[in-house]
Amino acid sequence: MNETMITIAGNVATELRFVRSDRGTSLVSFRLASTPRRYDRNQGGWVDGHTTYVTIVCWRTLAENVAGSLHKGDPVVVFGRLRVENWEREGKTGTTVEVEAQALGHDLSRGTSAFRRTRREQR
Amino acid sequence: MNETMITIAGNVATELRFVRSDRGTSLVSFRLASTPRRYDRNQGGWVDGHTTYVTIVCWRTLAENVAGSLHKGDPVVVFGRLRVENWEREGKTGTTVEVEAQALGHDLSRGTSAFRRTRREQR
Amino acid sequence: MNETMITIAGNVATELRFVRSDRGTSLVSFRLASTPRRYDRNQGGWVDGHTTYVTIVCWRTLAENVAGSLHKGDPVVVFGRLRVENWEREGKTGTTVEVEAQALGHDLSRGTSAFRRTRREQR
Amino acid sequence: MNETMITIAGNVATELRFVRSDRGTSLVSFRLASTPRRYDRNQGGWVDGHTTYVTIVCWRTLAENVAGSLHKGDPVVVFGRLRVENWEREGKTGTTVEVEAQALGHDLSRGTSAFRRTRREQR
Repeated sequence: MNETMITIAGNVATELRFVRSDRGTSLVSFRLASTPRRYDRNQGGWVDGHTTYVTIVCWRTLAENVAGSLHKGDPVVVFGRLRVENWEREGKTGTTVEVEAQALGHDLSRGTSAFRRTRREQR
Repeated sequence: MNETMITIAGNVATELRFVRSDRGTSLVSFRLASTPRRYDRNQGGWVDGHTTYVTIVCWRTLAENVAGSLHKGDPVVVFGRLRVENWEREGKTGTTVEVEAQALGHDLSRGTSAFRRTRREQR
Repeated sequence: MNETMITIAGNVATELRFVRSDRGTSLVSFRLASTPRRYDRNQGGWVDGHTTYVTIVCWRTLAENVAGSLHKGDPVVVFGRLRVENWEREGKTGTTVEVEAQALGHDLSRGTSAFRRTRREQR
Repeated sequence: MNETMITIAGNVATELRFVRSDRGTSLVSFRLASTPRRYDRNQGGWVDGHTTYVTIVCWRTLAENVAGSLHKGDPVVVFGRLRVENWEREGKTGTTVEVEAQALGHDLSRGTSAFRRTRREQR
């Protein structure tokens, strides 16, 4: 089996969290809120569905570009690997739902963007 | 924004749970375990990654066919809507990660299947 | 950039074409017809949309299992890599739209399947 | 069956073509080139795969924002509906591969973007 890939569109729901690892690798994470809208036949109009929250994680060049481009509230489209982790720590349990982004951009269905290419990165 | 669609391949990790609602609607759910394999350049071979568990939910005709076809351990491919829910109940909190299946089948990369079409359902 | 992955559900529209390469590798291909249905607000009902045809290509173990399981008319769900090729041959031009399947199964929203696992393959 | 959704990342390969219909609806289309890179075990490095070209089609607000944001050569990520059409016209035949975009953005793995939200559109 391969990685589980996912595309999710939504709004940046938190401030960005920027970390640089000991080895100097950049890492940015934030929460994304995705609220589907669907046509309701009975009401004869569009209604909001349940909001799904996931944590978006970006590494290296993508992390640096995201740190210089995204702000809380921005609409984005994210493509990446889904990873669900069930953890246990100090007697507590929880579940982390993460998408490690491979491609990510401001959603132009919501506004315009001025793009500036960075010098070619090593991938 | 639209629903967040996802395709996930893995193994049925639990027995099926079959419920019929008061209104007579069929519902089947089970846990799916998805373990990606990736080529490790350093080791020069394929290695297992982290296993992601999600709950698969099937409704109506799909639920009935799934109940008559799937068993614990079977390899399947599932396409459906992702929904992450953070809940709080009796002082406890948790997170549910569900995929509401729209299409689902035994994965023929793992074996063979003999198919029998049901009479045309209303969708 | 990564491969472009796609999930497509539809019906097997042709007989299967089975080939064994000089090196003994199995290859199966067939045409898949996918017809979306959408709710039409004006008509107040579901209507068929445009039918998309693509060529599904399966290799090795998947090819062998598909050859032993699928028949023309069967409903399937396919996950794989999309590849569009514009070709020119003997003064003619054309476009081939292929999905190289990674996972593929009978769609249980249309019927039931009896599955038999093959012995563990090398991937 | 539902629409076949696809996420594709690549570069804008042509100038944008902007059209306004008789009814005043905006429509933008362009060609997208997507070249996968994969790790080649034998060569011990990353190599380019086959380039897939598709036509991206954007409507209404998305079309207007795309017209004001994208340029030939820009790296983008596109999520939308796949549609393959086999046509015949004046004795010639051909195949059109289109993605009707629902969400589309500059790919921040390649550079930075400054975003400006348009006033809330009706969807």
